[in-house]
Amino acid sequence: MNYKIVFQTLGKILLVEAALLILPLIVSLIYHEMEVILPFITTSGILLICGLLLVKLLKTTNNNYFPKEAFAIVSLSWILVSIFGCLPFILSGAINNFFDAFFESASGFSTTGATVISDIESLSKGLLFWRSFSQWLGGMGILVFVLAILPNVDPRSMYILKAESPGPKVGKLVSKVKVTAIILYLIYIVLTLILTILLKTSGLPLYDSILHALSVAGTGGFSIKNTSIMAYQNIPAEIIITVFMLLFAINFNLYYYILIGQGKQILKNEELRLFLIIVIISTLIIAINIMKLYGNFRNSLHHSFFQVASIISTTGMTSTDFNIWPSLSKWILIILMITGGCAGSTCGGIKLSRVIILGKTIKNEVKYSLHPNQVITTKFEHKRVEEDVLRGVVSFIIAYLFIVILGTLLISFENIDILSSFTAVLTCISNVGPGLNLVGPMENFAFFSNFSKLILSIIMLAGRLEIFPILILFTPRLWKRV
Amino acid sequence: MNYKIVFQTLGKILLVEAALLILPLIVSLIYHEMEVILPFITTSGILLICGLLLVKLLKTTNNNYFPKEAFAIVSLSWILVSIFGCLPFILSGAINNFFDAFFESASGFSTTGATVISDIESLSKGLLFWRSFSQWLGGMGILVFVLAILPNVDPRSMYILKAESPGPKVGKLVSKVKVTAIILYLIYIVLTLILTILLKTSGLPLYDSILHALSVAGTGGFSIKNTSIMAYQNIPAEIIITVFMLLFAINFNLYYYILIGQGKQILKNEELRLFLIIVIISTLIIAINIMKLYGNFRNSLHHSFFQVASIISTTGMTSTDFNIWPSLSKWILIILMITGGCAGSTCGGIKLSRVIILGKTIKNEVKYSLHPNQVITTKFEHKRVEEDVLRGVVSFIIAYLFIVILGTLLISFENIDILSSFTAVLTCISNVGPGLNLVGPMENFAFFSNFSKLILSIIMLAGRLEIFPILILFTPRLWKRV
Repeated sequence: MNYKIVFQTLGKILLVEAALLILPLIVSLIYHEMEVILPFITTSGILLICGLLLVKLLKTTNNNYFPKEAFAIVSLSWILVSIFGCLPFILSGAINNFFDAFFESASGFSTTGATVISDIESLSKGLLFWRSFSQWLGGMGILVFVLAILPNVDPRSMYILKAESPGPKVGKLVSKVKVTAIILYLIYIVLTLILTILLKTSGLPLYDSILHALSVAGTGGFSIKNTSIMAYQNIPAEIIITVFMLLFAINFNLYYYILIGQGKQILKNEELRLFLIIVIISTLIIAINIMKLYGNFRNSLHHSFFQVASIISTTGMTSTDFNIWPSLSKWILIILMITGGCAGSTCGGIKLSRVIILGKTIKNEVKYSLHPNQVITTKFEHKRVEEDVLRGVVSFIIAYLFIVILGTLLISFENIDILSSFTAVLTCISNVGPGLNLVGPMENFAFFSNFSKLILSIIMLAGRLEIFPILILFTPRLWKRV
Repeated sequence: MNYKIVFQTLGKILLVEAALLILPLIVSLIYHEMEVILPFITTSGILLICGLLLVKLLKTTNNNYFPKEAFAIVSLSWILVSIFGCLPFILSGAINNFFDAFFESASGFSTTGATVISDIESLSKGLLFWRSFSQWLGGMGILVFVLAILPNVDPRSMYILKAESPGPKVGKLVSKVKVTAIILYLIYIVLTLILTILLKTSGLPLYDSILHALSVAGTGGFSIKNTSIMAYQNIPAEIIITVFMLLFAINFNLYYYILIGQGKQILKNEELRLFLIIVIISTLIIAINIMKLYGNFRNSLHHSFFQVASIISTTGMTSTDFNIWPSLSKWILIILMITGGCAGSTCGGIKLSRVIILGKTIKNEVKYSLHPNQVITTKFEHKRVEEDVLRGVVSFIIAYLFIVILGTLLISFENIDILSSFTAVLTCISNVGPGLNLVGPMENFAFFSNFSKLILSIIMLAGRLEIFPILILFTPRLWKRV
């Protein structure tokens, strides 16, 4: 590994985080929150010093980087950004324990939305802004952001985009990486703005509208209320959020197609079609299944639609306590937790494009079993799936499975019931937020031991980066100096 | 599909089943059980007529068969054998409902060992023999048995051996399929005999020794006591069974190597090594974890060792109620349920050879991510894993996952808790027997609806045949006439 280029790039990323902390600082200045102004300034200062040291001291002319360096930059930067990002919580005294603060910060940047804070409403407005803002940044990607704002972006930083983007293929819109990053962020900003305006119009206060828009856009799910969106008793706001959770779970490339007048492309999109089918069918089955709990079909449809959108988009906001739903509905939510939404969106999970490719793999194996001599290719979105993409999809699923099984094993040392530990790991790796039973939508992650919190934090980051960048950190050959 | 050859072969298999029913008939004659003598004779007669009709009427000169026909023969014969095998239960009045009887029969032949009978001890000795004997037959394979006894075995019946044998590769010992089948059954019979003698020596009655030996050999797990092996309060018998459950979960090829004086091969076997490591580590962790429940380490080690051997071999016999164990121990059992033992043995689950190949796939993907231009091959048991074997392993895992997820969804209509429905499906697809909660070791499957019982029966057979032969039945192109 070319250490110098890796650490130099990490330095730049820390400088960007130092600058981003100015936003929550402004919020706390507006609300005269003396207790968090200093923590934000201190954190920003520490980041500035560390960043400058890394950038200046490690000046190198050898700025070659390859997959190795890209993976190291991506995984280390997410870990570092989460560690530094938890300092405001600790310095302000809002969270006393490092593992709690790291969990909260990792949950933010990974857009999971699980929390260890029991009384969210007791947090200052500045910290709440930082929580939601971290989800917004994590949604589209911290490094995509860095690529969008940095001058002189190397074409090889494609590797970085590849390692950070969700889904089996790279979401490259135009030939230049920097321009792709800018387009993605512009679409993202515009959608977030529209959502903010709609929420304000529906009756939410401006501050609440902005913060919910940020965490919905990143499909994070952090709320600023203890009872999530339920606190507002505002049905129009819930419907707006439902629709936008779905919009943020769709491949952003499709919005780009609309912008360049190729809207027809959307109709042909296999993944989007499956996404809509799953949303409709799941919503209907659950609505019928939970009708007894909500008196009438309209109410049950509302909650069913909200929860399906919330879980498949891996946002994890809650309009009701689905922990009390019948097993059938809960199992459907677990399935949606695993699948997640579309690739190239801000959502987590294994992504529907991978589900489609896996389904086709089985179909092809059946064909192959019947006709061993026939040459069979897998097609997706009307194109042949390349060998390496197929292998990547399969490896991802296997790694996902291994992590869920072994993660649950590690969390089982808590001696909590299996459904709690299993869904805790599932909701973390898929970046959803709530699970079932002890980690249900009305509960939080505070009761876990430091060990479990650390494991779950790593799993959240691994889930956001689609496992391999984090897995690669444990490979000795990565760390060999070149 | 060449219908004639398929139905003709099915006819032969039914004739073999007709002949096999003579054994339980003899048992019921010995014990003067009038109520089951007629049912056995009737069932055997029906099989004889159906078999003869299929064999005689469909006489064909075109006895070419290819993968298509082999798959159809394997899956249809297992379904038919299970359906006809349930007749003695119905005709004797022991079970009144067809779905219950089919479940019991499928559970027998698939070597699952789950039961719908609450009071097993009320069954006649003839029926109990038939239950255990079906597991013995299912263990090594009904068609392997047919291949071993039929004259003029076509070399192309290799396809049948391939479709019925457990594991990613074919367990062909010698060049001739028929000889391979005979060797396998001889090893199997000798091991079963040794187990019977040992159990008799430990103090079990002869009848009980034979029946437990049959169901342990097939890693089925049917007992003839309501409280399984616990009923005897016989520690030596439990230890003997523990050891033999492990022996039957090892690749039978290894016994063949010993026979031909190549015992050294065993030491190099990757799968066996992993098997032993998993058994030792799981036993120790569970023994420590459950020590509080059993007073001392010796007791907890005994139960831990028995349960680990029982679950990893997918036998499913119980020495204690592991439903009350702590979550950590239960989760380890769930993992063992998924993995199962070695390929080429009588056990179910995904098999450890597949686990090893999957682990290497992830390792290779990491290598590939770091060095995209390097050519990387997967090695297993000191040989390169061929492309089609690798694809088969991967497809199997994906199909296994899909079935577990969708099967649980279908069972969730019962509105039982998720852990019950999830482990019910898991224990059925892996052919174990008991699950957790409502399907725990002290419970049975009687409470399920007919619909769920049918689904679980199909899942058991699908698990035994490693999914694809059953999946292929749902492919329209299979049924196209040639």
